[in-house]
Amino acid sequence: MGGDHGPIVTVPAALELLRKHEDVCAILVGLEEKIRPLIPGELPSRLRLHHASEVVGMDESPALAIRNKKDSSMRVALDLVKSGEADACVSAGNTGALMAISRFVLKTLPGIDRPAICAILPTVSGHVHVLDLGANVDCSPEHLLQFGIMGASLVGALEHKDRPTVGILNIGEEDIKGNDVVKRAAELLKESGLNFIGNVEGDGLYKGEADVVVCDGFVGNVALKTSEGLAQMLATFLRQEFGRNLFTKMAAVVALPVLKHFKRRVDHRRYNGASLIGLKGIVLKSHGSADSFSFCNALERAADTVRSGVLQRISERVAQQHTIQEVN
Amino acid sequence: MGGDHGPIVTVPAALELLRKHEDVCAILVGLEEKIRPLIPGELPSRLRLHHASEVVGMDESPALAIRNKKDSSMRVALDLVKSGEADACVSAGNTGALMAISRFVLKTLPGIDRPAICAILPTVSGHVHVLDLGANVDCSPEHLLQFGIMGASLVGALEHKDRPTVGILNIGEEDIKGNDVVKRAAELLKESGLNFIGNVEGDGLYKGEADVVVCDGFVGNVALKTSEGLAQMLATFLRQEFGRNLFTKMAAVVALPVLKHFKRRVDHRRYNGASLIGLKGIVLKSHGSADSFSFCNALERAADTVRSGVLQRISERVAQQHTIQEVN
Repeated sequence: MGGDHGPIVTVPAALELLRKHEDVCAILVGLEEKIRPLIPGELPSRLRLHHASEVVGMDESPALAIRNKKDSSMRVALDLVKSGEADACVSAGNTGALMAISRFVLKTLPGIDRPAICAILPTVSGHVHVLDLGANVDCSPEHLLQFGIMGASLVGALEHKDRPTVGILNIGEEDIKGNDVVKRAAELLKESGLNFIGNVEGDGLYKGEADVVVCDGFVGNVALKTSEGLAQMLATFLRQEFGRNLFTKMAAVVALPVLKHFKRRVDHRRYNGASLIGLKGIVLKSHGSADSFSFCNALERAADTVRSGVLQRISERVAQQHTIQEVN
Repeated sequence: MGGDHGPIVTVPAALELLRKHEDVCAILVGLEEKIRPLIPGELPSRLRLHHASEVVGMDESPALAIRNKKDSSMRVALDLVKSGEADACVSAGNTGALMAISRFVLKTLPGIDRPAICAILPTVSGHVHVLDLGANVDCSPEHLLQFGIMGASLVGALEHKDRPTVGILNIGEEDIKGNDVVKRAAELLKESGLNFIGNVEGDGLYKGEADVVVCDGFVGNVALKTSEGLAQMLATFLRQEFGRNLFTKMAAVVALPVLKHFKRRVDHRRYNGASLIGLKGIVLKSHGSADSFSFCNALERAADTVRSGVLQRISERVAQQHTIQEVN
């Protein structure tokens, strides 16, 4: 029900998911009277409708949402994950509320203090998983170590990489730079047995220097949003330049196939779907402004995550970490 | 002498500066035997050469540079500012060393605890001054307030704006978001009498939401470097797409004037020259990889800063701030 557009986006995305993936079933959770009219004809066999009478507002306080909205679509969807009726929950709604209710309903995995938001960004050579992107504004070195373990487990499970590389976002390549938390976290990551490659600077994110980059949620969120803002500005400038006069408009027509290819390559909609990782269940957050194409990508990413067995992988890796720490 | 290229870039830039601005004199500080051969014919009347026998390495420890290199080009140039022989110092060298030696030689302005690095970024509607970009990895709320005062004074002086808008970089638009330091800093900025507009998110930087945005040096540096990395990646992708085959190459030829115009508009070289602000003297840091065009822009920015009388403006504003705090 959430996001900027609600069921008008999420329902067609779910129908597209079922069309593309024959092994997937979908449960649409929310106001039945709003959802049902958006499904043409009979309900497809792999689609269920689960009524929930309330909706968490996009600006609603997470604490109030937990206390007062026990029949919100968000809460009910997460309850379905908790009971095992659903394998994953995907929402385009209020991020803070989704994280808070997920923690409240599902709890964190053993050995994980705080869940994090992990998203994928494109790089020159592929892509990178970055966490945390805003769930935790203040992090201890131990939290950053746990983010590294969770990120590496996720990439390992999703991409079948044995030893994904892990870096820490910092402001210099030398060990001496950065603040105390980052320096201590780097030491912990070095001792962790992860494939830790050291500091990654802001520009290193897009150079593909690591498979996983960890940072606190404040810095990560600024990096993500700054990137969004810059990309939007550059797109605006490019449109303005090609729309300047008759000649530039003709040039635009000639260049259109190239520009379209370029746009497809950097289309943020393809990267939609951030994992709320560290919970006893799979939860993905779609961008609030997602369209159907974009939301369907988040749904597919959720299905991939379920198939990957990532939760067990994290649990095993955390247990292994405890052994490493006892030996040290 | 510093930067990735040394005098081969800085000397032609200085000559270009003199050609463009008849009221400016330049002193080239460094190894005379390296600099002199780069000046064709006689020394122009407004150009002086000041020999310095040492060079601070790009990776040299700032503390060691202060202690051991008393005749480095950086140190000597800053001594010239201190003695009043020069009005400003511009360097493409080691940022940490430039900041440390500047503090050591020039000292900070009264009421300013820490100098900051302030650079200009393009926005959809113009540009924004952002500070700090890496000098201070940990900042107190009071430091962020001082950054706001310095940034507003700089914009006021350079752009003749009476009440430039000031924002604080944060991860949400609501007051409740962000960490404790940022929240407290926002309170101080609100009470400061500055034209404070509240939180600016990462994407707001490029939307031109404020004339000045303050943040700690860790976050600012990540935002800046992330932007550089993303811009480089997008440029690479665009080049790749236009170079894909014969048709796309022909499209590139047609689109070339438009693409050139676009490139000129977002050319980071035009924004080169970050102010080390808060010192009793004017010091600018050029990007280490700057070419002559880019370095000349930093030199011109330094000349503008000298003409603006910004140092006095900061001092007056800091004194005013003390009065405001006493009244509160």
